[in-house]
Amino acid sequence: MRSPAEHAQLALLLEVSSTPKPGNVDREREYPDLRFEHFMAGAVGAGDGLRALADPHVPLGDAFAEAIAGMSRQTGGNTQFGAILLLAPLVRAAARGPLGASRATEVVDETTVDDAAGFYRAFEHVDVAIDDPPAGLEPLDVRRGDDAIPALRRRELTWGDIMAASADVDGIGAEWTNGFPRTFAAAERLVTGDSPVSQRAAAVYLELLAEEPDTFVITQHDTDTATEVRDRAAAALAGEEDVTALATEFVDRGINPGTTADIVAGGLFVALERGLEV
Amino acid sequence: MRSPAEHAQLALLLEVSSTPKPGNVDREREYPDLRFEHFMAGAVGAGDGLRALADPHVPLGDAFAEAIAGMSRQTGGNTQFGAILLLAPLVRAAARGPLGASRATEVVDETTVDDAAGFYRAFEHVDVAIDDPPAGLEPLDVRRGDDAIPALRRRELTWGDIMAASADVDGIGAEWTNGFPRTFAAAERLVTGDSPVSQRAAAVYLELLAEEPDTFVITQHDTDTATEVRDRAAAALAGEEDVTALATEFVDRGINPGTTADIVAGGLFVALERGLEV
Repeated sequence: MRSPAEHAQLALLLEVSSTPKPGNVDREREYPDLRFEHFMAGAVGAGDGLRALADPHVPLGDAFAEAIAGMSRQTGGNTQFGAILLLAPLVRAAARGPLGASRATEVVDETTVDDAAGFYRAFEHVDVAIDDPPAGLEPLDVRRGDDAIPALRRRELTWGDIMAASADVDGIGAEWTNGFPRTFAAAERLVTGDSPVSQRAAAVYLELLAEEPDTFVITQHDTDTATEVRDRAAAALAGEEDVTALATEFVDRGINPGTTADIVAGGLFVALERGLEV
Repeated sequence: MRSPAEHAQLALLLEVSSTPKPGNVDREREYPDLRFEHFMAGAVGAGDGLRALADPHVPLGDAFAEAIAGMSRQTGGNTQFGAILLLAPLVRAAARGPLGASRATEVVDETTVDDAAGFYRAFEHVDVAIDDPPAGLEPLDVRRGDDAIPALRRRELTWGDIMAASADVDGIGAEWTNGFPRTFAAAERLVTGDSPVSQRAAAVYLELLAEEPDTFVITQHDTDTATEVRDRAAAALAGEEDVTALATEFVDRGINPGTTADIVAGGLFVALERGLEV
């Protein structure tokens, strides 16, 4: 029986191993400076932090910062920040008992201002593509890293509050805030079937991509591009576009639907906890 | 700075990520029942045991048995037994100080009869393709697992003795016994250059395959097949055969030069310890 921390590490590895996943690094596609090997190193480096996430004696924000510091010990840059952000409450919840959405939301609701500070600290380790904060929240811009922590303390905002503030522009914030609906739905689809797990994960990725505009694509490009990506994923799903050609085109255009990949990683974790065999 | 245990886990992942590696599972080729995802799960599961290998308080044989038990918690069967067998003394040596062949041989020389028992115990967890033992060593057939341990104790054989007894028919036994010459030579070739690590590892794999008949191919097939594999790898290296076609053919024929892959994993570990950046 694997531990929650092992399931989390395996989920990161299985996510990047599944192919084709239009726009994202996978077994057959990579960017010159962000390669498959960087994702391997990111998953290995995150190991200590993932174990800390499962340890009830380590504050959740500290464990997250440790995981991101470890993930960042490779030369490719940001490999799995969003995936680990999604995994953090799920791993803590799984360490408490059988993993369900309500247990995960309980972890989110219990987060503290110190946890929020850990989240901000994590940004010191890696460049994460991120949009300007909502009006009035400029002092809390995560890109300020450590420097934003005093403002955080003055306003007494927990990590759950911070994630909720971005829930309408960030797919991971939405998962944290709304009971992880897409993550658990993805897990449902991943846990059944007898094709190789990496094929199932690629299929679920395409379905998720066809459902909603990817918030990371909105941040890196714009809403029009994200809408195009969603529509063309839907066309690929309907058999009207070739998914392999789409994968090549998106990589060529630097379109990288990272949030959708993060939700696949979260879904793989939940599915592994619920009996998905590898 | 990654720990020796992290380098070992990363070496396992980078080895299987490099492509093309004629005959072995890699990013683009897999067997129906032994897939890329099983190697991911094997590397994750081995984690605790790899950390034990780096821990001077854990007997080496116990740590190895733990790593193999963990590696075996996936449904693909034997993924990385040979690689972890090669890594065991190297990880222990690296935990003591800068990694060189003499330090690794020191670890081999210090192994005990208890360590040999741990090695035999590891075979309880996984089916490893292995030949009949040399004449007179039938009671010590590793396929007997635990049952061979009393014979081992009567003869007072250390783990190093056991590996030396198979050095002329097993490439990993030869490395243990002769100061890890091919492993360190592979590391030399891996540590320099600026192409992606996975490309360098594939190139070194082909060079190693062209040097000597792979002992795992001898075990699984016969000497003629292993000689053919060596000669055709040499032809591919000389540009006279297409390496991708060779990879497809070997997988189709179930020719799986596992020992050569294990030495690449060992070489990657040494190279990472000596500054190879990922």
